[in-house]
Amino acid sequence: MEPLTVEQKAALSIGADFWHTSAVPGVPSILVSDGPHGLRVQPGAGDHVGLGGSLPATCFPTAAALASTWDPALLREVGEALGTEARAQGVGVVLGPGVNIKRSPLCGRNFEYFSEDPHLTGVLAAALVEGVQSRGVGTSLKHFAANNQETDRLRVSAEVDERTLREIYLPAFEHVVTTARPWTVMCAYNRVNGTYASEHAWLLTTVLRDEWGFDGVVVSDWGAVADRVAALAAGLDLEMPPNTGVSDRAIVDAVADGSLDEAVLDRAVDRMRRLVERAGPAGRGEFDHDAHHALARRAAADAIVLLRNEGPDEHSGTLPLRDSPALTVAVVGELARTPRYQGAGSSQVNPTRVDVPLEEIRAALPSSTVGFAPGYALDGPADRALADEAVALASGADVVVAVLGLPPAEESEGFDRTHIDLPVAQTALLARLSATGVPVVVALAHGGVVRTDPWEQRVAAVVTCWLGGQAGGGALADVLTGATDPGGRLAETVPLRLADTPSHLNFPGEEGRVRYGEGVFVGYRGFDALDRPVAHPFGHGLSYTTFGYSGLTVDVDGTDLTVGATVTNTGERAGREVVQLYVGDPQASVARPPAELRGFTKIALEPGESRTVTFDLHARDLSFWSVAHGGWVVEPGEFEIAVGSSSRDLRLCRTVTVDVERPRPVLTADSTLQEWLADPEGGPALRAAAGPGILDDAELQKVIGNFPLARLAAFPGIGITRETLTRLGA
Amino acid sequence: MEPLTVEQKAALSIGADFWHTSAVPGVPSILVSDGPHGLRVQPGAGDHVGLGGSLPATCFPTAAALASTWDPALLREVGEALGTEARAQGVGVVLGPGVNIKRSPLCGRNFEYFSEDPHLTGVLAAALVEGVQSRGVGTSLKHFAANNQETDRLRVSAEVDERTLREIYLPAFEHVVTTARPWTVMCAYNRVNGTYASEHAWLLTTVLRDEWGFDGVVVSDWGAVADRVAALAAGLDLEMPPNTGVSDRAIVDAVADGSLDEAVLDRAVDRMRRLVERAGPAGRGEFDHDAHHALARRAAADAIVLLRNEGPDEHSGTLPLRDSPALTVAVVGELARTPRYQGAGSSQVNPTRVDVPLEEIRAALPSSTVGFAPGYALDGPADRALADEAVALASGADVVVAVLGLPPAEESEGFDRTHIDLPVAQTALLARLSATGVPVVVALAHGGVVRTDPWEQRVAAVVTCWLGGQAGGGALADVLTGATDPGGRLAETVPLRLADTPSHLNFPGEEGRVRYGEGVFVGYRGFDALDRPVAHPFGHGLSYTTFGYSGLTVDVDGTDLTVGATVTNTGERAGREVVQLYVGDPQASVARPPAELRGFTKIALEPGESRTVTFDLHARDLSFWSVAHGGWVVEPGEFEIAVGSSSRDLRLCRTVTVDVERPRPVLTADSTLQEWLADPEGGPALRAAAGPGILDDAELQKVIGNFPLARLAAFPGIGITRETLTRLGA
Repeated sequence: MEPLTVEQKAALSIGADFWHTSAVPGVPSILVSDGPHGLRVQPGAGDHVGLGGSLPATCFPTAAALASTWDPALLREVGEALGTEARAQGVGVVLGPGVNIKRSPLCGRNFEYFSEDPHLTGVLAAALVEGVQSRGVGTSLKHFAANNQETDRLRVSAEVDERTLREIYLPAFEHVVTTARPWTVMCAYNRVNGTYASEHAWLLTTVLRDEWGFDGVVVSDWGAVADRVAALAAGLDLEMPPNTGVSDRAIVDAVADGSLDEAVLDRAVDRMRRLVERAGPAGRGEFDHDAHHALARRAAADAIVLLRNEGPDEHSGTLPLRDSPALTVAVVGELARTPRYQGAGSSQVNPTRVDVPLEEIRAALPSSTVGFAPGYALDGPADRALADEAVALASGADVVVAVLGLPPAEESEGFDRTHIDLPVAQTALLARLSATGVPVVVALAHGGVVRTDPWEQRVAAVVTCWLGGQAGGGALADVLTGATDPGGRLAETVPLRLADTPSHLNFPGEEGRVRYGEGVFVGYRGFDALDRPVAHPFGHGLSYTTFGYSGLTVDVDGTDLTVGATVTNTGERAGREVVQLYVGDPQASVARPPAELRGFTKIALEPGESRTVTFDLHARDLSFWSVAHGGWVVEPGEFEIAVGSSSRDLRLCRTVTVDVERPRPVLTADSTLQEWLADPEGGPALRAAAGPGILDDAELQKVIGNFPLARLAAFPGIGITRETLTRLGA
Repeated sequence: MEPLTVEQKAALSIGADFWHTSAVPGVPSILVSDGPHGLRVQPGAGDHVGLGGSLPATCFPTAAALASTWDPALLREVGEALGTEARAQGVGVVLGPGVNIKRSPLCGRNFEYFSEDPHLTGVLAAALVEGVQSRGVGTSLKHFAANNQETDRLRVSAEVDERTLREIYLPAFEHVVTTARPWTVMCAYNRVNGTYASEHAWLLTTVLRDEWGFDGVVVSDWGAVADRVAALAAGLDLEMPPNTGVSDRAIVDAVADGSLDEAVLDRAVDRMRRLVERAGPAGRGEFDHDAHHALARRAAADAIVLLRNEGPDEHSGTLPLRDSPALTVAVVGELARTPRYQGAGSSQVNPTRVDVPLEEIRAALPSSTVGFAPGYALDGPADRALADEAVALASGADVVVAVLGLPPAEESEGFDRTHIDLPVAQTALLARLSATGVPVVVALAHGGVVRTDPWEQRVAAVVTCWLGGQAGGGALADVLTGATDPGGRLAETVPLRLADTPSHLNFPGEEGRVRYGEGVFVGYRGFDALDRPVAHPFGHGLSYTTFGYSGLTVDVDGTDLTVGATVTNTGERAGREVVQLYVGDPQASVARPPAELRGFTKIALEPGESRTVTFDLHARDLSFWSVAHGGWVVEPGEFEIAVGSSSRDLRLCRTVTVDVERPRPVLTADSTLQEWLADPEGGPALRAAAGPGILDDAELQKVIGNFPLARLAAFPGIGITRETLTRLGA
C-alpha cells in the first residue's frame, strides 16, 4: 500500500463532513452520531450544524434518569440496545456518554450527565459503554474535562486545582477508560486552568494515555478546536467538524516548516486507522422497536424516585394508587398530555413513538374514573381559567395527580438555568390544589434538579421522573399504580435553596473564568461538610416496602477492607433497595468530605427476605490525591465505614483503624521546626545538631515553630544556625 | 562624601541587628520597634527572637478593639500617643498597623487586625498612621499582602484571583498608602499565587509603587526573605533581621557577576537614606503615663460592643447597672481578676499598669454589694467546686456579671484557632448561672470572634470587650454602669456556627496552598449573598438609647453620588450612633456582594437631638475590578443605596440609576455570536456581513449562540464563513 501523503494524513485528522470521517487510501470513512440516550443519525452529510431532523430511534431515558436507577446491569442493557440501533443505522461511533459531574444544579446540560458523584457516574457510564461496544459500535466518552456549565462554554477557563480534578472531575473518565475501554474520548470546549481542553497535553496525553492507558482516538467536541496544530501536538487526533481548508493546510504547513513533527501526525493517523478497523464495514438493518420501547419503559420506571409518600396514617402512603370503581383521580397538568421526556440540543432524538402519561394512567386504572385538566400552559403566566378548571376537577376527586415540571424553554444545551424553581404558574396552581384538602401526588418532569421546598410539605407524595425518554409516560403509570416498585434513588442532592449549593457563589464565573472554589466539596460532599440541611439527600428514594439493615462486618487487611451487611425486606411488598457504602477519613491531614460513596448495589427482595451484600474496598477507596506527594495517599488512622439507604440515612456505621506507614516528608532547610521535631528521625537529628535555645522553649515554639529552619538560622541566639543546617545536611 | 561601596550598600539593605538598621558613612542607624497598639522596645540589641522583656509602654486596645470603635478621630489620638511614646523611647519606626482582612474567625492573629471589611480597615488604619507619623515617627503598614492565617505562614501560597485581591485584600493598603503615606510597608511571610510576597514584583513594585505612588521603604517581615537578591529585584529594600554573612554576600556577588543591576541596589539605598533622614536623630524623653492610660481607657470603652440587652420589659435593658445600696452584684469569672487584654507574639506589650475589671467594677459601684467568685480556671477542665461557689454567689445576687473569654493559650500569633467556642468550663458554668433565674450579664474578652449561640438566648445582656488593652477593666466598668454609652460596633460578623463562615471549607488550606475559594464574598459579603442567618451582623452594636432614621436623599451626578440622612436620638439618654452607608449593584455583569460598606460616621446625640449626615460617593465606590478591562469599572444601571445601623439593619434604602457608558468589548473572531449581536455596532455589521442561516434561527442561537464566530465559521451552511470574518475585519 502506498504510504499516505501529508495531505492525506491531514485530511484523516479532520473529518470529511459534519458526521463522517475522511476516507483516504486504505482507510474508509465511518459515520458518527450523537446519541448518549438515543441515536440522532441525520440523512446525508448533515444540515448546517447537525441539529435538524434525524432518523427515528428509540429515545431512552436521559443520563440524569438512567443514573437514578443505580443499576449498572440495566445501563448495560440500554447500551446494548443503543449499539444495536447504531449498527442498524450504519453508525460506527455513538457520541456519548457524557460523564461530567453536576457541579451546580443550574448547568443547562445536567440532563445529559449522570450525577454529582464520580463513583456512581463512572460505574454506570462504564456499563453503558460496555453495552454499546458489545455490539461492535464505538462510544465517545465526553466532555473531557471540567465542562460543567454552558455559560461561555467555548472559552471559559475552569480554574480547578489538581486534587479536585483527580478526586471529583476525572475519576469517572478514569474508571470508564480503564475498565470499559471506549473507542474514543471527546475533548471539552472549555479551557482548563487557562489551556483549551483541545490543546491540553496534560489531560489528553499525560493523564489519559500515559497514566490511564487509553489507546483510542481523541476527537474534538464539534467546533472545539482553536488551533489545529497545537491540538494535534497535545494529543487530539480528530477534529470535527472539519475546518476544511484551514486546519488541513495548517497541519501541512507545520510539517513543512518543521514546527510539527510528522511523527505526531502519524500517531494520530495510526489511531484513526485503528478506529476505522474496529468499526468495520457499516452495518444496516432493522431493530425491534417494541422490544426497545419496552426496555425504555422499564428503565424509565427504575429511574423514578419516590421522594415522599405520606398517607392517612404513618404506615401507609398515598401511593401506590389502587384501581377501583370507587376511585376518582384528577390528573392535572399540561405535561400529562404534552410530555417532556428529553432535552434540547445535540442529544435530541426523533423517537419511534411517545407514551402520553395521561393515556397511560388511564390504561393502568381501567376501573377508576380519571379526569383531566391542563391547569397551566407550558409557556406564559398563570392562567386563571385553566387553574379554576383544574381546582374544580380536583375538588371532586379522591386524589390529584399533578404532573409538573420544567418547560422546554427553561433548560437546554447552550445555556444555564438561573434558578431551580418550578414556574410560578405551576406552584400557584399547586397551592390551590393543596388547599382543596384532596391528597395531591406530584409527578415531576425535568432534567436538572428542581426545588421542592416549601410546597412539598403540603402535598401527599412526590415522584420525580427526570426526563424519562419516550416511554416515560408508561413508566409513570407503572410506578403510580405499584406495577413497579419505585426503583430510583437520587443521583444528586435536592437542596432546600439554590444558595445552599456549595458552588453557588462561584457559578458560572465571570469574564472568562470560573473558580472551582468549593474544591472537592461538590454536591453532598459540601452539604455534609457544612452540616447544611437539604430537601432530599443524595441517594434518597423511597420504596413501597421498607428495609432493615443489620450485621455490619468490616474486615481490615492492610488497606483492603471487606464490608458486609444484611438487608431485610421488612414490609409487605416485594421491593428493591440500593444499598450504599460510604467512607470517611476524619483524621486526614487534608480537608476531606465526611463521607464519600465507594460502593453500591441494587437488590430485589421479597417480603421477609434477607440478603447479605459485601463490598471490597482497596487503597484507592481510602485515598486522597496529594499534590505534595504527586499521587494517591492513604494515611494511617481511623476510617468511618457506613452502610445505608442514602447519604443521610446511614443505618450501620463502624470506625476502623487502618495501619499503614504515614508518608513522610523529605526534610530540608525549607521544612519547619515543627516538621523536623515531628519526624521520628528528624527530631533526634535536629536535637543533636542544634544548640540551646528554641528547642527548650515551648512558648517560643508556638509562635515561630512554623518557621523553616533556614529562616530561623537568620535569628540570633536560638540555637539553630547555618552550622546546624550543615550538620543536618539540610 | 565618599560614595558607598557595594558592601556598604548591601549592609544598608539588611539591618544591623534584630532591631536596628545598619549605619554606613553618612547614614546613621535607626531603631524600629513592634507596636501596633503599644511599643515593645527591647533594651540592647534584642534577645534571640525579640520576644523577650521590653520597656514599659502603654498597652492600648488591640486593633480588633480599636476597629470596633468605628472612630477615625480616636484612632488618630491613639496614633499620636504611640508616636509620642516612640519618640520618647528613641524609636524611628513603629512596626504596624496590620491591615490584613479577617478572612476567617480562626486566624490566630485576628486580634492584631481590624476588620473583615477593607473600607473600615483602611479608614481607621490611615488615621492611626497619620497620628503616629504626626509625631515624626514612621509606621510600617503590614503584612503586604494576603497574609490571612498563621498556619504554614512562612510558606503557604494564598491562591487568590486578581479581582479578589483588588476588592478585598488590597484596598486597605491602598487607602493607607495613598492618603496617610506610611514611611514603610512590611511584606508578608507567605506566598501569593506561588511567589513569596518578599519577592513579588507585581505587589512590591507594580501595584505598591507604580500604581499607588508609594515612596517609602519596603521592609521584610522578620525572617520573610528566602532569596535576598530576588527580593531586592522585586522591590524589597530592607531585610530584617539581617541574614548577615549570607544576604550581604549574595548581593555583593550578584552585583559582581552582573546578575543584579547595581542600580537596583542603589534604589534601595536611596530609599533607606531617605527613611533615616525622615526619622532624624533618635528622640528621648518621657511621656505622660496617666494621660495615655486615660486615653487607653476611653478607647477601650468606645470599643465595647453591646450585643444584647434584654430587660424586665421591652423598654429597658438589664444594663446599665445603677449603683445603689440595694444592689447586689455577683462578679463571676477568673478573667475578672486575671484580665486578658492583649495577645501573644510580636505585639505583646509590657504595660505601664493594668486595670483589673473586678476592682474597677467595685470602684464604679461604691454603694452596691459586689461579690466575686472565679467560677472557672483559665486552664484545665471545668472545676466543680469553683462552679458551685459561683452559682451560690449568683443565687443571692440581683445580677450576675460573668466575665468570660478565651484563655491565652487559645489564640496567639503563630497558630490558628480550630474552633470559635468558649471553653467548655465556661459555657457549662454559664448554663448553671442562667439556671438560677438571676439575670446574667456576660462580658467577653477575646481577640478573635467567639460564638454566642446558643447560650446568649439564656442571658440578659452581652458585651464584648475584645482585647481592650491595659485600661480595659476600667472601660468595662464605665460601660456596665453607663458612665460611657457603649460605643462599639462589630467590625466582623459573629456567625451562628463556624461552618457558616464563607471561607470555612478553604481555611487554612493544605499542602502549602490555600484557595481563596469564596472570592470577594468574605465576611458579611458572603453571609448576605447566601442569605444566611448570623448571630450578630457586621456593624451591629446597641446603645443605651435609640436612634431614628429619616429623610434619605440621594443626588446623582454622573458617577458622583451625595447621600444624606437624618438621625435622631429617640431615647432618654445621650448616646452615639455609627451611621453606615452600604452600596449594592444588583445588575452587575459579575457576581457582586448585595451590599458593601462605602461610608460611615460616628455621631453623638443628646436626647431628642437630630443631625443630618452626608456621604460623598464616587466612581470607585460603585466599581468592581474587571480583569477583562484591567481596571475599575462602573456599569450603568441600578444601584442600591442603603443607610442604617448595621449591615442587616438598613433603615433607609433607595434604588438609583447611574447613567454611564457601558464598557464595550473589543469584538474579534473570538467574540461570540451573542456578543456581536448585543453590540450596538457589531450587531448591524455582522448582519450585513453574514449570509442567511443562524441569524434567522432563534432556536439555534440559544444552543450555539455562545460560540465564537471563528468556531462557527467551521460549521457549514449557517451563513457565517471565513469570508464573513474577513468582511468584519475580525
